[in-house]
Amino acid sequence: MVTSREIRLKSRPVGMPSAENFEVATVTVPDPAPGEVQVKNIWMTVDPYMRGRMVDRASYVPPFQLGEPLQGGAIGEIAASNDPRLKRGDLVSTMFGWRESFNAPAANVQKLETFGLPPQAFLGVAGMPGLTAWVGLLKIAALKPGDVVFVSAAAGAVGSVVCQIAKIKGHTVIGSAGGAAKGAFLKQIGVDHVIDYKATANLTEALLRAAPNGLDVYFDNVGGEHLVAALTAANRFARFALCGMISQYNAATMPAGPPNLILAVGKSLRLEGFIVSNHFNLLPEFQKDMSGWMREGKLTWKETVENGIENAPAAFLKLFKGENLGKMLVKLA
Amino acid sequence: MVTSREIRLKSRPVGMPSAENFEVATVTVPDPAPGEVQVKNIWMTVDPYMRGRMVDRASYVPPFQLGEPLQGGAIGEIAASNDPRLKRGDLVSTMFGWRESFNAPAANVQKLETFGLPPQAFLGVAGMPGLTAWVGLLKIAALKPGDVVFVSAAAGAVGSVVCQIAKIKGHTVIGSAGGAAKGAFLKQIGVDHVIDYKATANLTEALLRAAPNGLDVYFDNVGGEHLVAALTAANRFARFALCGMISQYNAATMPAGPPNLILAVGKSLRLEGFIVSNHFNLLPEFQKDMSGWMREGKLTWKETVENGIENAPAAFLKLFKGENLGKMLVKLA
Repeated sequence: MVTSREIRLKSRPVGMPSAENFEVATVTVPDPAPGEVQVKNIWMTVDPYMRGRMVDRASYVPPFQLGEPLQGGAIGEIAASNDPRLKRGDLVSTMFGWRESFNAPAANVQKLETFGLPPQAFLGVAGMPGLTAWVGLLKIAALKPGDVVFVSAAAGAVGSVVCQIAKIKGHTVIGSAGGAAKGAFLKQIGVDHVIDYKATANLTEALLRAAPNGLDVYFDNVGGEHLVAALTAANRFARFALCGMISQYNAATMPAGPPNLILAVGKSLRLEGFIVSNHFNLLPEFQKDMSGWMREGKLTWKETVENGIENAPAAFLKLFKGENLGKMLVKLA
Repeated sequence: MVTSREIRLKSRPVGMPSAENFEVATVTVPDPAPGEVQVKNIWMTVDPYMRGRMVDRASYVPPFQLGEPLQGGAIGEIAASNDPRLKRGDLVSTMFGWRESFNAPAANVQKLETFGLPPQAFLGVAGMPGLTAWVGLLKIAALKPGDVVFVSAAAGAVGSVVCQIAKIKGHTVIGSAGGAAKGAFLKQIGVDHVIDYKATANLTEALLRAAPNGLDVYFDNVGGEHLVAALTAANRFARFALCGMISQYNAATMPAGPPNLILAVGKSLRLEGFIVSNHFNLLPEFQKDMSGWMREGKLTWKETVENGIENAPAAFLKLFKGENLGKMLVKLA
């Protein structure tokens, strides 16, 4: 029997979430029942999509419940096993984040083979964010030779992988991110034109300067003004992968839509939203590509790490202030 | 030598066009030079897309020039020929609308084989609007078995063909149009649920009632509130063919974009704009389908006809007031 702290949703945020929407609770985790394992989490992830689950509405994943622990990706270690398939010390990947320890049926955790990578990479570049980048760029936007690629939130967990895949494949890449540190990282990973949107009075003009011949692919993590600028700068037959719209997740009232969406007609644009969980069938192809690029030293990544479960809400909140460079993680042990 | 009246763009409309933006001029048409033909127009078309060409900006077709005759689809008869390929009395299809007579190189007019249809059908159901409907529904929205289809401006030249193709293929079709006469026409062509948007306080609620299980395809001719409603009512993986946004063509200021566009992410929606002229390679396939359906009596159409070149501007203006049922045409001779 161990004690575990967990983060619960105390109240549903309206607009920008705050620390008051979360509470830390301590629970007792009994010994695992037959067929169960006990997992001690080492890493957990905070991701922008979790904001959507804090709203009480039907969506592609059910909403978080008040008074219940939050959920999300985590990497842990088997602390005790009551199932022959897993043994103490095994690393596992689960969706039981936001808590220090838990019991679960062995079938609900996935044994992690790290192939020499740090385990937390499987919450980022080698995990869901990496797959999101790969699917969105190669399958949804259907990247093809000669495409000029624009990426928003380009220094984030997803965006930075999009930029690097596009560079590996020889494309001109324009990345938008806020602040000098992110810009320097983007330059380091080979992004051709960096737009510091926080220092840019007119994003559309900045994008048109960076892409004087227009853009063919836009990987949208942000929505809002970034999407408006991309519609204006798009070439005919450009494809937009709509991955997320972080600029709008905390809108308490209906945000404004892109007033220039009509350009999609005249320019024959394709805007396509996607959810990575609908593309898990592509995991083997993704892993083959990514492991090859990593072996060749072509893919790098950044992490921003908070320590301790009690700081998980703060880590989450920083996502919406753009305070993460690369993957935002919480180290639990 | 004959005289011909033509409609010229007198001033560029700002917001809703008016009669003052047009002027009638009379010109002299000499005998055709060698290699030329003289055409006497019988029918001309007015289409919503022409509004875009009245603005002085780069687009997929160059803007109309002030003081010059407008252009657009027309069906005429060879009045005199100075080229062996065409003879007096031949019917031709051209882009020299908005005028009564003209000379042109024989290579710039296309001899029309009517296959027993009235010649003006080639400005509508058997012409560009029909191809637009067919391409948008079958190729862009990629209609597949079981799809529930929503069509805006459903009683128009394009929309009414979309509805009928979807019905021929066995789909549930919801059509939006303004007024009882259009609603009756939609019922006549088999549309399952008619929404009279002019008599509907809340279009989204009306659409959700008409499509209780959601919609899978939206053929957008209108934009604005129709697009907002379709985003809300869309099922996962729905496809939107963005054909036009007539509700916004006359906006003097930037119109509001759909505030719920973010739904495209969570529902994995695809919104794709298209221009029919990029799909002329599909004409043979279109003609095979359409001629078969027409022979079998499965396709019908309506025309709204104004008479005389002097009434062409009025016919055009009626498009934006929704005063046409089916294809709006001007009979010139």
